[in-house]
Amino acid sequence: MRKVGKNSVAFDNVFLHSWGTSCGPKEKEGPIGTYFDVSFNDLYCDEKTWETAEMNLMRTALVEAIRKGNLSISEVELAVGGDLNNQIAVSNYLMNDFPIPFIGIYGACSTAVLSLINASTFIDSGYGKYIACMTSSHNSTSERQFRYPTEYGGQRPPSITTTVTGSGVGILTNKKTEIRISKATIGCVTSSGENDANDMGRTMAPAASMTLKQHLEDFKISPDEYDLIVTGDLSLYGSKVFKDILKEYKIDVENNYQDCGLMIYDLQNQDVIAGGSGCGCASLVMYGYICSLLRSKKLKKVLVIATGALLNPVMVAQGKEIPSIAHAVCLEGVSE
Amino acid sequence: MRKVGKNSVAFDNVFLHSWGTSCGPKEKEGPIGTYFDVSFNDLYCDEKTWETAEMNLMRTALVEAIRKGNLSISEVELAVGGDLNNQIAVSNYLMNDFPIPFIGIYGACSTAVLSLINASTFIDSGYGKYIACMTSSHNSTSERQFRYPTEYGGQRPPSITTTVTGSGVGILTNKKTEIRISKATIGCVTSSGENDANDMGRTMAPAASMTLKQHLEDFKISPDEYDLIVTGDLSLYGSKVFKDILKEYKIDVENNYQDCGLMIYDLQNQDVIAGGSGCGCASLVMYGYICSLLRSKKLKKVLVIATGALLNPVMVAQGKEIPSIAHAVCLEGVSE
Repeated sequence: MRKVGKNSVAFDNVFLHSWGTSCGPKEKEGPIGTYFDVSFNDLYCDEKTWETAEMNLMRTALVEAIRKGNLSISEVELAVGGDLNNQIAVSNYLMNDFPIPFIGIYGACSTAVLSLINASTFIDSGYGKYIACMTSSHNSTSERQFRYPTEYGGQRPPSITTTVTGSGVGILTNKKTEIRISKATIGCVTSSGENDANDMGRTMAPAASMTLKQHLEDFKISPDEYDLIVTGDLSLYGSKVFKDILKEYKIDVENNYQDCGLMIYDLQNQDVIAGGSGCGCASLVMYGYICSLLRSKKLKKVLVIATGALLNPVMVAQGKEIPSIAHAVCLEGVSE
Repeated sequence: MRKVGKNSVAFDNVFLHSWGTSCGPKEKEGPIGTYFDVSFNDLYCDEKTWETAEMNLMRTALVEAIRKGNLSISEVELAVGGDLNNQIAVSNYLMNDFPIPFIGIYGACSTAVLSLINASTFIDSGYGKYIACMTSSHNSTSERQFRYPTEYGGQRPPSITTTVTGSGVGILTNKKTEIRISKATIGCVTSSGENDANDMGRTMAPAASMTLKQHLEDFKISPDEYDLIVTGDLSLYGSKVFKDILKEYKIDVENNYQDCGLMIYDLQNQDVIAGGSGCGCASLVMYGYICSLLRSKKLKKVLVIATGALLNPVMVAQGKEIPSIAHAVCLEGVSE
């Protein structure tokens, strides 16, 4: 591993061994739903509470990643992960069932990439052969915790996004595979000036654009280095602000930029308001869709910038703004 | 860095450059209060809310660590940290004021050591020269979030511990200093069978004992390898269960074991019930007291096992037990 510039690192020897994805019905019906391994027919996911439903999503994705990688549980030497629930409860409670050393992380929806960066550092420094990176989100656990219980049926403003019900788990390795984790940029907490819990996209746009700007500066590259640059869950309004901020810095991403929150749902025909959000959003799109395209050589080099709104209801009630953070990772296809 | 056994690593080149500590009045009046850098006269810590009070504790400790290390803020290349607040809000909001890449972690009260392990891995893999590890807890933010607001004046059962008001920040480096981070063991989430939010000590004892057992097995050493083995915050009842479990495995820690929760307060004369707890407990004792004794050669080699009860009020309301986790790190004095 080499430190590059102010916020970035280059990894020498980190590869994606396998991945597993699980989702709810809405994600399965979306434009890239066929790329996800397992789907459930309703938000209970064969469980009795939203929290255990989310645990089942993450368990399913983890077991799929292990199975598809032809591994046994005991071969996974470390797990790094988190979720949106207070005390990252879903990850912590799930890991009670797995005898794997566990590092809990929290970066709100940026956790999808933060877990990859953290695990890549452990792989690169020789910790072991296989490390799992895991995250999840569930529409009903998130809505209840950050806004209102879904059963309340509150009206949603146009700026609100739909928290994705799903989990993505990747298993990293130090042995060459078809997909390499080559670069990463660790974000700084960034002021948004926003304090509207119903407008996470615009809240996270400054952090996302600052992380991309820093990434390009650190590696001395331009955006056309990448076939595709995706943000995690800026969705309809946030992704516009993201591009506007970048324009001020003369960074042009008009031709190769998308947002996971706009890829996972059909905004015209699914009732998702401004698009998708949540840890599950970036991780489902990254592992399920992007990694499939990298493996089939339809994509060569992708920068995933996962975005996290560091929303805490107590702080917002005290009149504070919601700061944000974004972490970026480069996934690239490995030539034979 | 070398992987050792199932859960452990040995670091080649990680040292503690400097540290900063801040605390409330009760911690200052305690038996090791003179070891802490800065203390506040009341729980508001010059702020208007409990959350901003805790932010001020962490800011003070971070600034002290930077100042005592003769560094500028821009020389700190990464910060790794977390706290007990939902969404690790205190750490995230504080880092909004510092232009330092930030990795948020959550291991409940085990965060004090988890941040050290994570940061040590980044140092060891060549990320940079200076990385800050930070954590905090505050009596009133914790009591309100996990139990009742302190203003409520609820009666406390004998098993309850007193959440420490304080913060400890360590800055790691790759250049030789007087204190080395030499070994670490990453814990697994461990079942406790307990679901009493007023008895965190007994809840965490199984995780602490399993992590020590694994540590000794991984490195093929016995407890007398260490001058001192400390657990983070098992306090009065938990530390007894810890020793009882170890006895079953014929591991004897009778002569060199203490608990940070019993060291930070005078249980006879301070109104703290079963002792201290919280992220601030292990970090104040570790950085403030133990590192001072290591530097003055009064201690040579210490194992700190920070313990975290992965308490989530929603899960407990759903009838689930409280799982726990414990992470261990070895701090040793460096001979000239």
